[in-house]
Amino acid sequence: MRPGSRPRRMRGTSAGSGPGLPFAALCHMRRKNTMTDRQRLKELGQQLRVDAVRAADAAGSGHPTSSMSAADLMAVLASDHLRYDFDEPSHSGNDHLILSKGHASPLLYALYKACGAISDEELLRYRKLGSPLEGHPTPRLPWVDVATGSLGQGLPIGAGVALAGASLDRLPYRVWVLCGDSELAEGSVWEAMEYAGQAGLANLTAVLDINRLGQRGPTRHGWDLDAYRRRVEAFGWHTVEVDGHDVDEIDAAYRRAREEAERPTAIIARTVKGAGVSAVADQEGAHGKPLADAERAVSELGGRRDLRIDVALPDSGGVRQRPGGSRVDLPTYAVGGEEATRDAFGRAVAALGDARPDTVVLDGEVADSTRAKFFVDQHPDRFFEFYIAEQQMIAAAVGLQVRGWTPYAATFAAFLARAYDFVRMAAVSRADINLVGSHAGVSIGEDGPSQMGLEDIAALRAVHNSVVLHPCDANSAARLTAGMAEHDGVSYLRTLRGKTPVVYGPDEGFEIGGSKVLRSSASDRVTVVAAGATVHEALAAADALAGEGIGVRVIDAYSIKPVDAPRLRAAAEETGRIVTVEDHWPEGGLGDAVLDVFADTRSTPRTMKLAVTGMPGSATPEEQRREAGIDAGAVEAAVRGILRQEHEPAAAGS
Amino acid sequence: MRPGSRPRRMRGTSAGSGPGLPFAALCHMRRKNTMTDRQRLKELGQQLRVDAVRAADAAGSGHPTSSMSAADLMAVLASDHLRYDFDEPSHSGNDHLILSKGHASPLLYALYKACGAISDEELLRYRKLGSPLEGHPTPRLPWVDVATGSLGQGLPIGAGVALAGASLDRLPYRVWVLCGDSELAEGSVWEAMEYAGQAGLANLTAVLDINRLGQRGPTRHGWDLDAYRRRVEAFGWHTVEVDGHDVDEIDAAYRRAREEAERPTAIIARTVKGAGVSAVADQEGAHGKPLADAERAVSELGGRRDLRIDVALPDSGGVRQRPGGSRVDLPTYAVGGEEATRDAFGRAVAALGDARPDTVVLDGEVADSTRAKFFVDQHPDRFFEFYIAEQQMIAAAVGLQVRGWTPYAATFAAFLARAYDFVRMAAVSRADINLVGSHAGVSIGEDGPSQMGLEDIAALRAVHNSVVLHPCDANSAARLTAGMAEHDGVSYLRTLRGKTPVVYGPDEGFEIGGSKVLRSSASDRVTVVAAGATVHEALAAADALAGEGIGVRVIDAYSIKPVDAPRLRAAAEETGRIVTVEDHWPEGGLGDAVLDVFADTRSTPRTMKLAVTGMPGSATPEEQRREAGIDAGAVEAAVRGILRQEHEPAAAGS
Repeated sequence: MRPGSRPRRMRGTSAGSGPGLPFAALCHMRRKNTMTDRQRLKELGQQLRVDAVRAADAAGSGHPTSSMSAADLMAVLASDHLRYDFDEPSHSGNDHLILSKGHASPLLYALYKACGAISDEELLRYRKLGSPLEGHPTPRLPWVDVATGSLGQGLPIGAGVALAGASLDRLPYRVWVLCGDSELAEGSVWEAMEYAGQAGLANLTAVLDINRLGQRGPTRHGWDLDAYRRRVEAFGWHTVEVDGHDVDEIDAAYRRAREEAERPTAIIARTVKGAGVSAVADQEGAHGKPLADAERAVSELGGRRDLRIDVALPDSGGVRQRPGGSRVDLPTYAVGGEEATRDAFGRAVAALGDARPDTVVLDGEVADSTRAKFFVDQHPDRFFEFYIAEQQMIAAAVGLQVRGWTPYAATFAAFLARAYDFVRMAAVSRADINLVGSHAGVSIGEDGPSQMGLEDIAALRAVHNSVVLHPCDANSAARLTAGMAEHDGVSYLRTLRGKTPVVYGPDEGFEIGGSKVLRSSASDRVTVVAAGATVHEALAAADALAGEGIGVRVIDAYSIKPVDAPRLRAAAEETGRIVTVEDHWPEGGLGDAVLDVFADTRSTPRTMKLAVTGMPGSATPEEQRREAGIDAGAVEAAVRGILRQEHEPAAAGS
Repeated sequence: MRPGSRPRRMRGTSAGSGPGLPFAALCHMRRKNTMTDRQRLKELGQQLRVDAVRAADAAGSGHPTSSMSAADLMAVLASDHLRYDFDEPSHSGNDHLILSKGHASPLLYALYKACGAISDEELLRYRKLGSPLEGHPTPRLPWVDVATGSLGQGLPIGAGVALAGASLDRLPYRVWVLCGDSELAEGSVWEAMEYAGQAGLANLTAVLDINRLGQRGPTRHGWDLDAYRRRVEAFGWHTVEVDGHDVDEIDAAYRRAREEAERPTAIIARTVKGAGVSAVADQEGAHGKPLADAERAVSELGGRRDLRIDVALPDSGGVRQRPGGSRVDLPTYAVGGEEATRDAFGRAVAALGDARPDTVVLDGEVADSTRAKFFVDQHPDRFFEFYIAEQQMIAAAVGLQVRGWTPYAATFAAFLARAYDFVRMAAVSRADINLVGSHAGVSIGEDGPSQMGLEDIAALRAVHNSVVLHPCDANSAARLTAGMAEHDGVSYLRTLRGKTPVVYGPDEGFEIGGSKVLRSSASDRVTVVAAGATVHEALAAADALAGEGIGVRVIDAYSIKPVDAPRLRAAAEETGRIVTVEDHWPEGGLGDAVLDVFADTRSTPRTMKLAVTGMPGSATPEEQRREAGIDAGAVEAAVRGILRQEHEPAAAGS
């Protein structure tokens, strides 16, 4: 999501439902309020419970009891500690409130209503077709930074936002993350505890809603608040234990969090799931369903209220501007030379850092291998080390783009699998992140299968609105490294460990969705489609076959998603036969991307797919490609085979 | 890997290289040894360093310095504490040694040589084509339980093996896991610390090789052993800090670990990376490469030695037998009724638990949703709760199958993405695990995209030797739940949240690789291929079209990998046109599996793919399928469209 790209009011609002009260009116209403602050906060907590119960009841589904445990925590936060301009979600001084326990969305939406951001009518369209008030929050609402609902992601993402505040934006906004107790079992939470603790992110506060009950029963530690305190403190955090329903204790805890200057703070709050309604309070079996008798619950909670929260405005910053960029002076390589595409990426992202001040690079302690190290040499202030914690690395990338930074997160292609759920959720967050996976395929050689990215194309293609790029030479890798910054969404660049010949001139252009024809003649009888290392195998095969008068077209499909359908269709029309060759498993890779082009069309070429089918061991890169049947010899045999087919009778059923 | 399935000597050994010395000879050699134990252990540590240096030197790659830091730790373990019969790797009493820092493979192989399991010739074929001594260890070697090399996996897997020892096998074997310090940044390590700490797995010992240096520089905590101690103790572990090069301290630490009866032990060892060779000792930039002057290093280490370790044999247990099973009495459902496939899975796996005593079920705190809860009701002793820690859940499944148990690990299909790297590595481990993902696709309805498995088919298909099953009714789900236990490798069952009509009789058979034809006539002009929820949409469309005299064949492709190629080819021959419809992203799912059948063949049908293309929000299941264009109306329109095509002129390039 680009800064400033969000409307001031939520999108997708159903026709007829109003935008809620304007801000002035809210302030006015609050001045009329005569209750003491303590009374008012308690009443507000009850209102949030009432509205959470009503929303889930209207929807016929949802998590009211998970909302009720944290209602007082959120009421005090929004009333007295949060700084946020609901009329200007992209205000650079806004605090960030991340609902890591995303299933408690009724609480968040009830809070938005109390803040005047949405109307009661909008609240009651919760979970309905077309409503942006989804079962779990997404940035379809302008006040939601990131999608949550896959537990254990809010805190690592919040750490990324807090990192931006402390090290890049240099603004005093705070990041507040509401976590459930069940999700503290996720390792990603401890990656975040370790990262934020060591980075000393004092602008980050985790509010731990310890309500004792998970989805199917008691949590591991129940109400043993000390169990959580010991763990969190061991990771260098400041902790405060509170009764999560005592507004004075909660208020004091938030003050202590704001006063703490050296460390992030965890507020460990003892709460009651379903608090306020005797039928469900601290009861098992009440998770994730509306209350059986909502009307009775609302009356037990004291009935409906219409208190409004006058959220404090940020006292610094302004409307965020996208940092401007100058022309990128990319590295260039001479045709005929040799270079690894991972090196070209490293040099290119370093050059991008010169031209674009919004470029940041994230590492999983392999920057020397991915070549992200070239960026750290030139821009140490915009390079962030997450050590071997890929989930925190990707989460931080998502957090940084929330603040308008353009992140490149790089590790081995194989190890992106460690953070796959974070990439999946980044797409739901409409996040704009750039991923780089080095050491693709069997071509890495001796290190063996644990280090080989062989499923990465399939996994990254199956991410909504993603782009998958796999250049075969240094100049194309450099161009695409810069180009992916222009794509909104999840972009993935797959790079090679070994050197490959430079086949493109420095001035050649490379577009997302494009391809290049490297061999072509009027007499081509077969088209070989390749990407990355296999492009060079295809070229060798084509040149050998040309010597025998067999014309073979070679297409470098460096953009695997979107793939260059028009060019592939034209090649199919002209040559009639296609061989695909990739350094990847046969499922979901380049070959399937090419076959997909010919789904939903009238004419389909004869095709043959070459990919890695057996589990590799250790061997040289050349031996690996030969063993896998994706080298020049295998391409040559495939071309001969597909040409031979038409002279044979069709086998039954084939 | 089934118990007893391993040869007594390593596989894939290159011709001419011997099996190493027989056991009796080793014992004999040791009796001749006149050094004191202390001298001998120090010499042994130097020998392991020498052989690690030689192996990496011969290979021209590898990680000798990472091996050298842990050489003394391993020398003392193997000599005086490990209980293992190298002649009988599947002996039920064997300890388990897991090299979590898999890049230190030269150390492991040097240890195998010292134990007489491999010869020096075999050691020097390290990383060569055909050698089972791969860059990172895999079970191609019979003494290796699981593949390592993706860091942070050894400890969670070891916790699974230790769980088997403590709760299922009830045998006194111990699990020893050697971890690097860099990998302690992985959240999965802390999932394991939490799990093993709370489970009180006293039979598990983590040896933390704190050598201060990672791949690209100093680790986060360097030699601050207390930083590790505080964290590990907070998670309930017993800890011992030692000088990792003092054999007496190391020996005492192992004794304390064996004496500790209540908690797992972490031995936190201060070590020097590259210890013993001044050119690389504690030097940055020496990671992951052979030593520049191996000969000089070997002489500095005191030259070659040929000490042998007389590893103590297990004092209990015997050759492991696969527990026998009786006939499975699966639940059955009446045709015409309705049931959710997730419920059928739950009932079926519970029935499987009655028939097969090796069946175990693992949960990520969603057993009420996945319906694994039916198993816990009947077999609480073989049900294991991992709370919301999917990586630990899958790792434990891998650990349990090491011991011959047959695990079913179940969570939401979407959340398997959290453990994708563990599934990837399970395939490299040749592990035999069963995964179950519930809440597939947009059909879950209101909860929204964070909870929808929409990439799971693509991700699981792209796992080596995997099986992907997606039944549409309760009887087929029950049969396939039992059937997947028979497949060696990673098997995946995708289940539905909502009820679907029962369309198959209780006696119908379902095979991995099979399919069912649900509608068929001599006049069929189009074949619709569906799976799961979309089968019922396809049937509704076919029945509507049949009313208009348009014959539509409907195939239930419940086995998506392997897909039923013969039946699809026959349908293509007979109907000429195929429409695929799936509740999944368009990339890497059912549609691509079907298109792949027609790659590499001579005749290809006209095809049209229906899948989820837009990012869903909240809505009812029916609204979701309609919005996504995968409901009966969309199938009907697709059939009409593909039939209309042939009456239109082919568009240019299409």
